[in-house]
Amino acid sequence: MDGDVLASLSQDDAEWAPVGRALAALRATSTDEVSRAVAACADLGIPVVSRGAGTGLSGGANAVDGCLVIDLSRMNQVLEIDVENMICVVQPGVVNNDLKAAVAEHGLWYPPDPASAPWSSIGGNVSTNAGGLCCLKYGVTRDYVLGLEVVVGGPAGAYGTVTRLGRRTTKGVAGYDLTGLFVGSEGTFGVITEITLRLRPARREAPRTVVGAFPSLVAAGAAVAAVTAAGLLPTALELLDRACLEAVEDWKHLGLEADAEALLLAQIDTPGESGQLEAAAMAEVFEKAGALWAAVSTDEQEAEALFAARRLAYPALERLSPVLTEDVCVPRSQVPAMLASIVEIGERHGVSIATIAHAGDGNLHPLIRTPAGDEAARVAAQAAFEEILSSALAKGGTVSGEHGIGLLKREGLRKELPAEVQAMQLALKQTLDPLNLFNPGKAI
Amino acid sequence: MDGDVLASLSQDDAEWAPVGRALAALRATSTDEVSRAVAACADLGIPVVSRGAGTGLSGGANAVDGCLVIDLSRMNQVLEIDVENMICVVQPGVVNNDLKAAVAEHGLWYPPDPASAPWSSIGGNVSTNAGGLCCLKYGVTRDYVLGLEVVVGGPAGAYGTVTRLGRRTTKGVAGYDLTGLFVGSEGTFGVITEITLRLRPARREAPRTVVGAFPSLVAAGAAVAAVTAAGLLPTALELLDRACLEAVEDWKHLGLEADAEALLLAQIDTPGESGQLEAAAMAEVFEKAGALWAAVSTDEQEAEALFAARRLAYPALERLSPVLTEDVCVPRSQVPAMLASIVEIGERHGVSIATIAHAGDGNLHPLIRTPAGDEAARVAAQAAFEEILSSALAKGGTVSGEHGIGLLKREGLRKELPAEVQAMQLALKQTLDPLNLFNPGKAI
Repeated sequence: MDGDVLASLSQDDAEWAPVGRALAALRATSTDEVSRAVAACADLGIPVVSRGAGTGLSGGANAVDGCLVIDLSRMNQVLEIDVENMICVVQPGVVNNDLKAAVAEHGLWYPPDPASAPWSSIGGNVSTNAGGLCCLKYGVTRDYVLGLEVVVGGPAGAYGTVTRLGRRTTKGVAGYDLTGLFVGSEGTFGVITEITLRLRPARREAPRTVVGAFPSLVAAGAAVAAVTAAGLLPTALELLDRACLEAVEDWKHLGLEADAEALLLAQIDTPGESGQLEAAAMAEVFEKAGALWAAVSTDEQEAEALFAARRLAYPALERLSPVLTEDVCVPRSQVPAMLASIVEIGERHGVSIATIAHAGDGNLHPLIRTPAGDEAARVAAQAAFEEILSSALAKGGTVSGEHGIGLLKREGLRKELPAEVQAMQLALKQTLDPLNLFNPGKAI
Repeated sequence: MDGDVLASLSQDDAEWAPVGRALAALRATSTDEVSRAVAACADLGIPVVSRGAGTGLSGGANAVDGCLVIDLSRMNQVLEIDVENMICVVQPGVVNNDLKAAVAEHGLWYPPDPASAPWSSIGGNVSTNAGGLCCLKYGVTRDYVLGLEVVVGGPAGAYGTVTRLGRRTTKGVAGYDLTGLFVGSEGTFGVITEITLRLRPARREAPRTVVGAFPSLVAAGAAVAAVTAAGLLPTALELLDRACLEAVEDWKHLGLEADAEALLLAQIDTPGESGQLEAAAMAEVFEKAGALWAAVSTDEQEAEALFAARRLAYPALERLSPVLTEDVCVPRSQVPAMLASIVEIGERHGVSIATIAHAGDGNLHPLIRTPAGDEAARVAAQAAFEEILSSALAKGGTVSGEHGIGLLKREGLRKELPAEVQAMQLALKQTLDPLNLFNPGKAI
């Protein structure tokens, strides 16, 4: 394999996470290939790092020294769509949006929608328990995974053993929830080679979009808290600050006007007149909370442009300079305080921080920007990064809402979890992967 | 403690599950008491069986010989309702419906609604990952558990160690999902002493009820499949057969007419006109699928009586004779075939089987009735019980949709899970509870 290809398969999208030197990469095309590779690696003591599209933001898919990278992006088939039972069976390399399109042809819907949905693959979504925009109402990836085919070792048998976890039924409590345990385990228990997903009926109407423009980040945060207090449950409630809007506009020319410090985008999918009433109520909540203006979008194209801007914010900023991505999640009531804290930390460290957020979930993505090659800025950015984690923890939050621990958040994890819980986590890893073969040094 | 009291605390509601002789019972009033009891039991090698209201149907809370029963029903406080963040923190002994009532005062809703909700406690709901009627649309208990306080041993430290799993935020992926792993583990990893639950905003309108009467169980099953095919997502889609209706009517005189072999009850909570349209569409699907009649209930009292009948079916039958409760779950498309199989198995073994079902989830509860003291009937019932499990497995189903494995389904579990998955389950148990102190012999 070409050295450049091996290098590109050796890292994900996380800035500054350490990247090891892989020994080789396998572009797997079948479960059997994965199984044989894992068995051979176990014999030779070669660590295994599996990866999908490589869009991760925590270094979870980065190579470790001397490892075999198993690239699953070519295992990208939708194997089955069972319309009667509203489930599908897919290979891990299927891109999230491709899966959505495939099931939509049958009147079905796969809700989880990380902003990376046009590029990220389901295997990675499962391994990080990816969230997204609509989890506010529809939950995260784990809520949709019914079963997995995995290549494992340890108690299950020799390394390379292929087995099935979970079920195809809507409900089931037969034994411990190993499926749920593997979701979000970042490839540290084995390699996922097939995924059975629960689907929902497609929505009959396009959702409504409500936009509010706010004079400050903190005012937008207060509006988020007011939405919850009003008993409104939007599908998505997203926040974009001015820097994000400008970066997207510079790049894509969607016609966005950055006339405010922050925008809130709400999506409501309650059908019919009730949805209309909820949308109007949402606009009113925005206004009462101090919006410069708020409106129910009547222009579908405009609404789509706004959500496109939300999805494009990260690549738009990354295009301009290296970006260190945060992923803290705090209780919703702490959103205004957390936004204020981010501004204060940025100013104090002299770093530029742009913020996008799944604000309705309390999941904030401050994006710390540093000029390429500026070592002092990089040191300041990393200090700000760790301080934001501490601030979130002090507010009852977590260091990762949806991106995973990977390599970047290990220190944060140590701060978050009680020592005895860390010991339990480690014991699970040692039990299910006694050789420490699978993605060593990640996630825990 | 009185011998009768100890005996009553030594078993749950499962017929014929073996009951051991407990050494003693502790009616715990605090986490600290539980912690000290667990530490002492570990020192003395006394197994610990924790229990809540004792409404389980698989023997999961039955005493084992020489154990300490820890009764958590007096730890029944709602400790906190955080309205802003839509979460609550409760002790394990809180009864499901009491929790619902407490949060409803704040405009919030805890959806999981096992039929036992008036009696069962949240701790038991969590330990079995209880389902219920509305999980079709709103998910099961696991979907609502954000965090747990648990008393554990093993890798976490000495037995009696108190620690916290999970979080208070809506999303979070920091480390392996130990919270989800403890949910449904039937007390085999430790004792749950506090639970943090996610809530939803209360619904603004009463849901609509659609009733269909069918000439046979299998016709009703076909209607269930047709509902899914029509893309309708009711909150609940319940089935009751004639025997259940008659048993409830005999007991409670709700004015139900058992003019059909099976009833389907659908509940729809889409608000406004859209809900009205969906309800009408549901009635039409019932009719096209062969209903004798179908109607959107315009009488709230009548609708309430029908759902009350559904919830009372199990105790109404139990009142008449011992009942062996099944809990199989099959893919929705297999519901008609599974219902036919139940009828056939009942006839062949000469046992009377009444069926209630969360039909929309494919989760069926055939209730095998046997005259008290009739040993031959009991043998036949047990043969039918095992055959129903096998039939569900052959249809791609599971031996337990929501009641748990306990003692009654262990043989079924062995049939369902691949040997290597069973080995993984056992390894997890040995890792988290190396002394095999917590509820030994259950769940796996």
